[in-house]
Amino acid sequence: MIAGIIGATGYAGAEITRILLSHPKVDALALSSTSFEGEDFANVYPNFFERIHSKLEKPERIIEKSDVVFAALPNGVSEQFAVCCVKKGIPFIDMSADFRFDDDEETYKAWYGKPYQEAELHRLSVYGLCEFNRSLISEKSAPVIIGNPGCYPTCASLAAWPALAKHLAASGETIIINAASGVTGGGREPQRSYHFPECNDSFTAYKTGNHRHTPEIARNFSKMEGGAGRNIIFTPHLAPMNRGILAALYVPLAKEYRITENSVLSEASLSAGPLIPVRPPSKEIMERAAALHAVYADFYAKERFVRVLPFGLNAATNRVRGSNYCDISIHIDQSGAVLIVMAAIDNMIKGAAGQAVQNMNILFGFNEAEGLEYQGALF
Amino acid sequence: MIAGIIGATGYAGAEITRILLSHPKVDALALSSTSFEGEDFANVYPNFFERIHSKLEKPERIIEKSDVVFAALPNGVSEQFAVCCVKKGIPFIDMSADFRFDDDEETYKAWYGKPYQEAELHRLSVYGLCEFNRSLISEKSAPVIIGNPGCYPTCASLAAWPALAKHLAASGETIIINAASGVTGGGREPQRSYHFPECNDSFTAYKTGNHRHTPEIARNFSKMEGGAGRNIIFTPHLAPMNRGILAALYVPLAKEYRITENSVLSEASLSAGPLIPVRPPSKEIMERAAALHAVYADFYAKERFVRVLPFGLNAATNRVRGSNYCDISIHIDQSGAVLIVMAAIDNMIKGAAGQAVQNMNILFGFNEAEGLEYQGALF
Amino acid sequence: MIAGIIGATGYAGAEITRILLSHPKVDALALSSTSFEGEDFANVYPNFFERIHSKLEKPERIIEKSDVVFAALPNGVSEQFAVCCVKKGIPFIDMSADFRFDDDEETYKAWYGKPYQEAELHRLSVYGLCEFNRSLISEKSAPVIIGNPGCYPTCASLAAWPALAKHLAASGETIIINAASGVTGGGREPQRSYHFPECNDSFTAYKTGNHRHTPEIARNFSKMEGGAGRNIIFTPHLAPMNRGILAALYVPLAKEYRITENSVLSEASLSAGPLIPVRPPSKEIMERAAALHAVYADFYAKERFVRVLPFGLNAATNRVRGSNYCDISIHIDQSGAVLIVMAAIDNMIKGAAGQAVQNMNILFGFNEAEGLEYQGALF
Amino acid sequence: MIAGIIGATGYAGAEITRILLSHPKVDALALSSTSFEGEDFANVYPNFFERIHSKLEKPERIIEKSDVVFAALPNGVSEQFAVCCVKKGIPFIDMSADFRFDDDEETYKAWYGKPYQEAELHRLSVYGLCEFNRSLISEKSAPVIIGNPGCYPTCASLAAWPALAKHLAASGETIIINAASGVTGGGREPQRSYHFPECNDSFTAYKTGNHRHTPEIARNFSKMEGGAGRNIIFTPHLAPMNRGILAALYVPLAKEYRITENSVLSEASLSAGPLIPVRPPSKEIMERAAALHAVYADFYAKERFVRVLPFGLNAATNRVRGSNYCDISIHIDQSGAVLIVMAAIDNMIKGAAGQAVQNMNILFGFNEAEGLEYQGALF
Repeated sequence: MIAGIIGATGYAGAEITRILLSHPKVDALALSSTSFEGEDFANVYPNFFERIHSKLEKPERIIEKSDVVFAALPNGVSEQFAVCCVKKGIPFIDMSADFRFDDDEETYKAWYGKPYQEAELHRLSVYGLCEFNRSLISEKSAPVIIGNPGCYPTCASLAAWPALAKHLAASGETIIINAASGVTGGGREPQRSYHFPECNDSFTAYKTGNHRHTPEIARNFSKMEGGAGRNIIFTPHLAPMNRGILAALYVPLAKEYRITENSVLSEASLSAGPLIPVRPPSKEIMERAAALHAVYADFYAKERFVRVLPFGLNAATNRVRGSNYCDISIHIDQSGAVLIVMAAIDNMIKGAAGQAVQNMNILFGFNEAEGLEYQGALF
Repeated sequence: MIAGIIGATGYAGAEITRILLSHPKVDALALSSTSFEGEDFANVYPNFFERIHSKLEKPERIIEKSDVVFAALPNGVSEQFAVCCVKKGIPFIDMSADFRFDDDEETYKAWYGKPYQEAELHRLSVYGLCEFNRSLISEKSAPVIIGNPGCYPTCASLAAWPALAKHLAASGETIIINAASGVTGGGREPQRSYHFPECNDSFTAYKTGNHRHTPEIARNFSKMEGGAGRNIIFTPHLAPMNRGILAALYVPLAKEYRITENSVLSEASLSAGPLIPVRPPSKEIMERAAALHAVYADFYAKERFVRVLPFGLNAATNRVRGSNYCDISIHIDQSGAVLIVMAAIDNMIKGAAGQAVQNMNILFGFNEAEGLEYQGALF
Repeated sequence: MIAGIIGATGYAGAEITRILLSHPKVDALALSSTSFEGEDFANVYPNFFERIHSKLEKPERIIEKSDVVFAALPNGVSEQFAVCCVKKGIPFIDMSADFRFDDDEETYKAWYGKPYQEAELHRLSVYGLCEFNRSLISEKSAPVIIGNPGCYPTCASLAAWPALAKHLAASGETIIINAASGVTGGGREPQRSYHFPECNDSFTAYKTGNHRHTPEIARNFSKMEGGAGRNIIFTPHLAPMNRGILAALYVPLAKEYRITENSVLSEASLSAGPLIPVRPPSKEIMERAAALHAVYADFYAKERFVRVLPFGLNAATNRVRGSNYCDISIHIDQSGAVLIVMAAIDNMIKGAAGQAVQNMNILFGFNEAEGLEYQGALF
Repeated sequence: MIAGIIGATGYAGAEITRILLSHPKVDALALSSTSFEGEDFANVYPNFFERIHSKLEKPERIIEKSDVVFAALPNGVSEQFAVCCVKKGIPFIDMSADFRFDDDEETYKAWYGKPYQEAELHRLSVYGLCEFNRSLISEKSAPVIIGNPGCYPTCASLAAWPALAKHLAASGETIIINAASGVTGGGREPQRSYHFPECNDSFTAYKTGNHRHTPEIARNFSKMEGGAGRNIIFTPHLAPMNRGILAALYVPLAKEYRITENSVLSEASLSAGPLIPVRPPSKEIMERAAALHAVYADFYAKERFVRVLPFGLNAATNRVRGSNYCDISIHIDQSGAVLIVMAAIDNMIKGAAGQAVQNMNILFGFNEAEGLEYQGALF
C-alpha cells in the first residue's frame, strides 16, 4: 500500500516518514510539503540521503495516489484534506488538534480560536488514543478520520487510566499533572525559546495554568472515569533535551486506599493542627504502594506498548527514547494519601508519529506493533 | 579576615572557595581536604590555576588559623569540627544536614540514621535560611553554628513563605512541590546516575515520596505558618543541566482567595458531578492571580536576593545561573482554586555556597550582598 | 541461529544485544557478564524491560550454546575465549584491540603493554574493517576470528581510503586527523572525566599525540596505500554529546591535484616570502574540489553504508546517529593545497556494534545490511 | 564615567553590559538598541531584572552622553557611529569586523563584500588584540577606534604567537587551526542551525575552507612573525554547548626543534618509504615537548589573562567559562615533528566582550584586569 504524508517536512511528518520507511506493509511513500514543494525530501533532511528519493508534491496529488493519508500540519487547516480523503474513501489520520474534540466544538473553539468548517466531518472521526479507543478505531468502516492525541494528553491519560477506571482516585478531587518535554515538542521552526543558547542548561515551565492540552486531558480523564468530572491542573515544562515527556501525576487516593488518618487531602485533614514531623514511608505504606502497583501492572498486562516498571524504579525518558513505549512507575507520598504516577514517552513516537502508525495498524487490521518494534538504547 | 573551608574539594566547598576569592572582606583562604591533603588546590580544580596557590591541609590546622570556618562535608561528620570552632570561639557554617534539625533530633535520626553525638552543640546553632532567620542569625553572639539549608528546602521555602505567612494557602491542605535539579546537586563523586551518557538528554524523578529534604521543607513551612501543620509532597527530578533548581509549588488557595465554586479542592467539590469542560482562565481569574502576585511582590520588595518576576513571566533557571538570586513567578490554575508558584535558584549558589556566604555576611554585620553581586548571563 | 555476547552489559555489548534483537537471522541471544552474573539483563538495562528475558551467564556456557560469539571486553582478555570458539569451530568477533594487530605483535605490545598469549590464534584472524577487508572476511572458512576495528580508526580510515588508493594524497606527507567523540566512547564505568557536570557544556582534547588508535590508523592508511608509509597525527576530543564521531582529515594533495603555485605544503613553499593576503577560494579551486568529490562519490558508489554527501554539505554526527552509516563530505582549503575530508559515524554502531554485526553478516553470507537498516532521526 | 553600548541587546552587547555593570570605574551605562528602542533592557533580558533599569535609546543619544562607546553591531554598519565618536573625541570600541583590516581594505572587501565608506577613519584605528598590541593601544591619544578581534582569531593568535615570534615554527609551512565553538558564537537570532533539536547532541564543521576569520588569523600570524607569509587552514566546528572555543593548532616545527629524522613534514620525508610502525612518544620527544612548553610558559609569564597550563594538561573550555582567560596547553605529535598547541577561551568574554573591556582598560590607563576578575566554576 501507499502512505501519503501531508506536511512531511515538519518534525512529526518527518518522523512518520521515518517510521513508515521500514513498515513491512507500506510499499511506498508519497510526501507533501507546502514550504518545500518540488524539492527532494532528502535535501530538507539530509539524514535520509540515499534512503528516500522523493520529490515533495502538492497535497492533492498525495491524496490521489495514497491508500492512507497522514496530516502533520498546524492546527486549523486539516479539514480541507479530510474532506478529500473522505470523498476518496481512504482513512485520514490527523496529527493536529482539529479532530481531538469532535463531540465538543465549543471547547475546541475556546482553546484554538476557530469553529469547525465542516461539522459533519467530526461525526466520522474517532479520537486515536490507541489503548483506550482500540475497539472504536478498529470497528470503524472506511471512510474514517483519526484525531491523533496530543503528546502530553497521551502520556497523562495512560498514566491516569487505571487509577480512574479502577476508582483508586478519590472522586472529584483535583489531579495535578506536572510534566516536562524535550524541545522537539516545539516543532521545527526556529524561535527564541528553542534557540540553543537560551534553552540549553536551563529548565522552566511555560503556559502555566493555560496550556491547550489541559481540556484534552480533562476530557480523557472524564471518559476514563465514566463521565465524572474533576478539576485537573496541568503544568508543562521545557527540559534541555531533544525528546521525551515525563509526567508526574498526583492522584489523591480514594478513602479505601488511604493508609493513615493523617491523610491530608481528606476532609479530616482540613482542620489543621500542629505539624506532625514527617517520617520516611512506613512498611505499611510501602506495601500499599506495592498493591497499587499490582493494580497497574495487572491493568496493562496485555498491552504491548505500556510497560508498568518493576516496583521501585522511576520512569525515565531515556528508557523510551526512540521507541513507542509508555513507561509507568508507581509511587506513593510518605503520608500514604496520594498516589504518584510517573509516565515517560518519546514525545515524537508514542506522543505523535508512533501512535499515528499504531492507529493505522489498528485501522487496517495489521499487527499493532508492525513498524514499531524498534528498541532504543539507554545512551 | 581568614576564612577556612573544610571539604574544599567537593562541589560546595569549591564553590565557597570561588566566591570568597573575590569577597572584599576576606583577606585569605585556608583550605582543607581529606582526599587531597598536601596537594595544591589548583591541581584538583585547574580552573583556579594562577588564581589560588594553596596547599590542602588538615581540618585542625584550618580551624586554628581561621576567623570563620565553613564545612562542606558529607552528612554525619560535622559535629567534631563544630566543637573545635566553638571552643576557639569562631563561627562554624555547616553545609551538611547535621545542624538543620537542631530542635528535632528524632527527625534527623529518622532520615539520616544517626543520633547527635554532641547534643549541647545544637543549642548554639541557628538554621541559616537567611531571609527567614536573618534577625536570629545577626543577633547571635559568637560562638555560633549555622546549619546552612538544603538546596531544595531553600527554593521551596522562599517560594511558599508569603503564601503561608499571609494565609493565602488553605489551612491544612497538602502542598505539592515538584522540583527539578541540575546534576551538580549530586556532588563531585562520579556514579552511574550522573554518568554523562546516562543522564544527558533524559529526565527522571528520583527518591519519589522519600527524599530527605521533605522533613526540612515541612518544618520550614510550619514555622512560616506559625507552627501549623499540613502534609507536603516533594518530588525531585534530575534535569540534564549543570546547575539550577526549579520548583513548582501547588498551593490550594484559602476560601477567601478562590474565585469560583467549581474550586475543586474544597469540600464542596468532593461530591463530583459530570465534567465541566475546561476553559482558559477567565479575566476574573487572571485579575485574582495578579492580586496574588502583588502580595508576593510586596512581601519581598526589600529583599536583595529574592525577585518576584513581573506578572506573566515564568521563572527559569538560566536567569539565576551563577547568581545568588531566587526568582519567583506567580500563576494560577485555570479554575482559580490553586496558586502555582515557580521558584528558581542556582543550586550551588543560593542553594549552597552563596547562602553560606550570605550567612557569614549577616553574622559579621557586613553588607549582606558582599561578594555575591555577580550577575550571570542568560546564555 | 544463536548469537552469544560476552560482556553484554558494557556499552558495546548492550548495543550488539540491541541490534541483534531485531536481526532476522538471529533466533536467540545468549548473554554473559562477569559483573552481573545471574542477574536479568533487563535489570541492568531497564530500557529492555519486557523485551529481553535473559539471565546473564558465564562465558563458557555462552560459547557452548552459540553459533557465533561476540566479545565486548576490556583489552587484553579475549584470547582465552577465542581459543574456546576456535576449538568449537564457531566464529569469534572481538570488539577489543586484541585482534587488530595480528601481523604486528610489537605494535600491540608497545601500545597495550602485553604480548600475545596465543600467537597462533592471530594467524586465524582478520581485521574487520568491512568495506576494506570484505573479501578477506567472506572467504575465511571457519574457524575465524574477527578483530573489530576501533571507532576512530573506522571513521578515519573510511575517510582516507579513496585519497590513498587513488593517490590524491601527496606521497609521504603527514595527514592530520582531528576528531571528536561523544562520551559513550568512554564506556559505561563512571569516572570524573565523564561525570556530567565536568563534561557537559565543555570541549577538550585528550591523549593529544599519544592515543592508542594512532598505530591502528597509520597501519590502515599504509595498507590502503599499498604499503607506503607516512606520518599521521591523530588528536581525539571529547564533545558533550552521547554518540557520534566526527573526524576532520587534512590531506596534502599530490602535485597533480594542487591548483596553485602558492600551494604551501610543497617544497616550493618552504622558502617563505611575505604574506599573500588570503582570499575566498576561487572558482578554479572550487571546481577542483568538486572533481575530488566526484572521485570519492565514484569510489563509494556501491557501498550501502558509506555515503559521500552532496558537494557543499558538511558531515554531521546527528545525521548518522543510530545508524550504521559513515557520512563523508569533501572540502578544500582556500589555497587549493589540502584536501579536507570530514567523516561522521555513530561511534557505537558503525564504530563498534553495527560493524560487528556487519562482519557477522559478511561471514555468514547474509545480506550485509541485515539488522542494520534502522534509519535514525535528525532530532 | 559613562559607557555607551550600541547594539546592547545582541549577545555581545548584553555581555559587555553585564561586565561593565560591576566595573569599578564605570558609573553608569547608556544602552541602545534598534530592535527594542524604548523598551526596558530588563524586559529583553529578564536575568537583569532589578539589576538594570535602563530604557533602550537611539545610538545618537548614547554617543552624546558617553565617555566611551562600544558598538556590538552586524558587520558593515559601524563607520557612521565611529565618525560621531571621533567628532566628539571619545574612544569607539567596535566588535564587528569593520575595523579589523584597517591597513588592508582589499581583504575586507573580498570577505565582507563592501568597501570602506570612510577611509580616513581607518587611519585612526588599532587592532585590539590586547596582549599583542598593548603598547599601540595605550599610546593612542584620543580620538581612537579599536577594532576588537574576532573570537577565533583571538584564540588562534594567542596560541600561535610564541611559536611564531620565537621561530619554533618551520618557516613557510602551513599551520592548521582546527577549532570548535559553542553556539553563542552564532548570535542571538534564532535560525535552523542553532535550533536546539538540530544542534543538541551533534557535532559538525561549517564553512570548511571558507570562513571569514581565515584572513584575520593569517594576517595576525604574519605580523607575529615579522611580516613573513605562510598558508593557514582554519576549520571551525559547532559544539553542543553555550560558550567556549577550543582551537587545536598544528605547527610544523623548525628543523632545529625536530627530534627525529623520521620527521615527516621535512623535505627528507617527501620520499616516502614503507610504513615505520608508530610508537608512543619517546622520552626524548617528551623532553622536547617540555622544553617547548617552557618557551611558552616563559613567553606568557607576565600576562594576567593568558595561562600556559602545567605540562601534561589539556586546555578545556569549561576551565575558562565565564572568565577572560586564554588557557594554552602544549603537546607534540608522537614523531616529534609537529608542535600541537591547544587554546581555550570563553568566546563571549576573551573572544568578545571581555577583550573589549580589557581594551577600554588599556586605553584609559586602568588596571588591565579591572572588571574582569571573575573566576568561573568548573561545573
